[in-house]
Amino acid sequence: MKDVHETFMNGENLKQKCIEMLHDRGCEVDDIIDIVFDLQKKYIPNLKREVCWDAVDRVLGKREVQYAILTGIELDYLAEEEKLREPLQSLVNSDNPLFGIDEILVLSICNLYGSIGLTNFGYVDKVKPGIIGKLDLEGKQTGKCHTFLDDIIGAIAAAAASSVAHNSHD
Amino acid sequence: MKDVHETFMNGENLKQKCIEMLHDRGCEVDDIIDIVFDLQKKYIPNLKREVCWDAVDRVLGKREVQYAILTGIELDYLAEEEKLREPLQSLVNSDNPLFGIDEILVLSICNLYGSIGLTNFGYVDKVKPGIIGKLDLEGKQTGKCHTFLDDIIGAIAAAAASSVAHNSHD
Amino acid sequence: MKDVHETFMNGENLKQKCIEMLHDRGCEVDDIIDIVFDLQKKYIPNLKREVCWDAVDRVLGKREVQYAILTGIELDYLAEEEKLREPLQSLVNSDNPLFGIDEILVLSICNLYGSIGLTNFGYVDKVKPGIIGKLDLEGKQTGKCHTFLDDIIGAIAAAAASSVAHNSHD
Amino acid sequence: MKDVHETFMNGENLKQKCIEMLHDRGCEVDDIIDIVFDLQKKYIPNLKREVCWDAVDRVLGKREVQYAILTGIELDYLAEEEKLREPLQSLVNSDNPLFGIDEILVLSICNLYGSIGLTNFGYVDKVKPGIIGKLDLEGKQTGKCHTFLDDIIGAIAAAAASSVAHNSHD
Repeated sequence: MKDVHETFMNGENLKQKCIEMLHDRGCEVDDIIDIVFDLQKKYIPNLKREVCWDAVDRVLGKREVQYAILTGIELDYLAEEEKLREPLQSLVNSDNPLFGIDEILVLSICNLYGSIGLTNFGYVDKVKPGIIGKLDLEGKQTGKCHTFLDDIIGAIAAAAASSVAHNSHD
Repeated sequence: MKDVHETFMNGENLKQKCIEMLHDRGCEVDDIIDIVFDLQKKYIPNLKREVCWDAVDRVLGKREVQYAILTGIELDYLAEEEKLREPLQSLVNSDNPLFGIDEILVLSICNLYGSIGLTNFGYVDKVKPGIIGKLDLEGKQTGKCHTFLDDIIGAIAAAAASSVAHNSHD
Repeated sequence: MKDVHETFMNGENLKQKCIEMLHDRGCEVDDIIDIVFDLQKKYIPNLKREVCWDAVDRVLGKREVQYAILTGIELDYLAEEEKLREPLQSLVNSDNPLFGIDEILVLSICNLYGSIGLTNFGYVDKVKPGIIGKLDLEGKQTGKCHTFLDDIIGAIAAAAASSVAHNSHD
Repeated sequence: MKDVHETFMNGENLKQKCIEMLHDRGCEVDDIIDIVFDLQKKYIPNLKREVCWDAVDRVLGKREVQYAILTGIELDYLAEEEKLREPLQSLVNSDNPLFGIDEILVLSICNLYGSIGLTNFGYVDKVKPGIIGKLDLEGKQTGKCHTFLDDIIGAIAAAAASSVAHNSHD
């Protein structure tokens, strides 16, 4: 088991693993870049997509982000496979709005580049732009659970948008 | 000095003091109730205004909220009076979007009733409904500073909305 | 599935369920009271155990605490049963000090009664008094995993200690 | 006023300004490095002081850290000069343990490198090693206030220690 562990502990490998996991759950890096671009284009008129890509890539390279992705997507998988004990199984599977553990789990992602990340996350979590709205709907179908996934994506987008905002002012 | 301190340390007195301070800065409790009602009426069709009033009142009764109000409004006053040292004076006075200390200061208010508070705060901070938008505009005038005030109001409304959401599910 | 869910959504039932889960994992409510008492007795000379008991009871009655207990203990169980996908399985099972998701999960517990909770949690997490140290050691044995449990207990104790501190000053 | 502002908005200038402010309040960068070294040497036997210096330097280069330093030290100055309105003046001046705004203000510093920062901060805040204990005592004298300063130093040390921990595992 140690070897498997060591293999993934390398940051670059773990980033690739996380990008694959997001892909397997229906979210491409491009979908996240779309949200970041939409969040920031009103503040930065000549914003380039590459700048957003770069920010998302840096966020995905952070260890705390990778661990939150691993943990959150695992809980979504387990809920789909009905392998969680009750009442957690029902709480996760129904995406109960008071559950709140999904938002807590991604707090460290939002906080990566200061407090603007939190504001962006709150906004994205309520408005559900692009892929987030699509996955939110899909998660309501039987056998599908995206309770943690949509918060993970929202938090990555929010953190990347904050990073773009900070850099545009330097 | 001790006596002055003791007088205000009583929770009920301090709540009244905070309501007066908000009033002096241009925000009535009713303005905050408006935001809470708007945030929650889409989720609770038969929502009553009294329920929102009660929630705002409970939030204003919390010590951590009172201390955040005292500190934030003081910094706004000092910025208006140009009594802060540079570069803080300019950062607060211009409501620099990367300053972030205003959002940090109110985090403990948002967190009072679980993580929905954070989401609500992020949304309100971006959309600036009602009194928040009005004060935000007013704060851009010479001699006026509402850098901390709008976040304080947003956080109180967000926490009260979370409390309403929790209670409606019990 | 709905029925099971409804049964537990009642706050009092869910509190009992959580107390049983903690017991099954080796932690009694009394063990948590011990930590709270030790944390606060240096500040409150005539501190009574009942006051600490009452505070722990109130913390366990909070929904966000109950959901964190359900989620964290589930992840410990799944790690013991080797049912998590790699590399999460190894990260949780080895209680990797950089994993950090265990500390994040309990943040909302620590924050229940203001920022003293955070300070208390940080201290308890490093010093590992009483049951926390015992479970930390036990978790290092093959087939045992208490990665999330010790942070949950530390956070409950920290929040209860903050509540005791606040009340003693009112 | 704009010019003054622009001058300091440059990251490197602002870092130097913050180091001077810490010096003027009685804390050298070396004092912070001492705490970081002590926090991490038990985990990393061959830890070098340069590594800790580098981590503290990187923390001091972050904008959210610089803004927290500017704001916190300003409030300490204003309390010493008795320029805050009551009851804030008494709350800050007496370093009231339930005030909590000082801990909140530095949360974004603690969170810079993941959740270990929070644990380190909680520990340091309770144990008060080195310069923190010295300033805490000094702040209790008439005319002196270090209510925010000791939390700022603790948070910088905690964040730097987390950075050292992360890097030693890569």
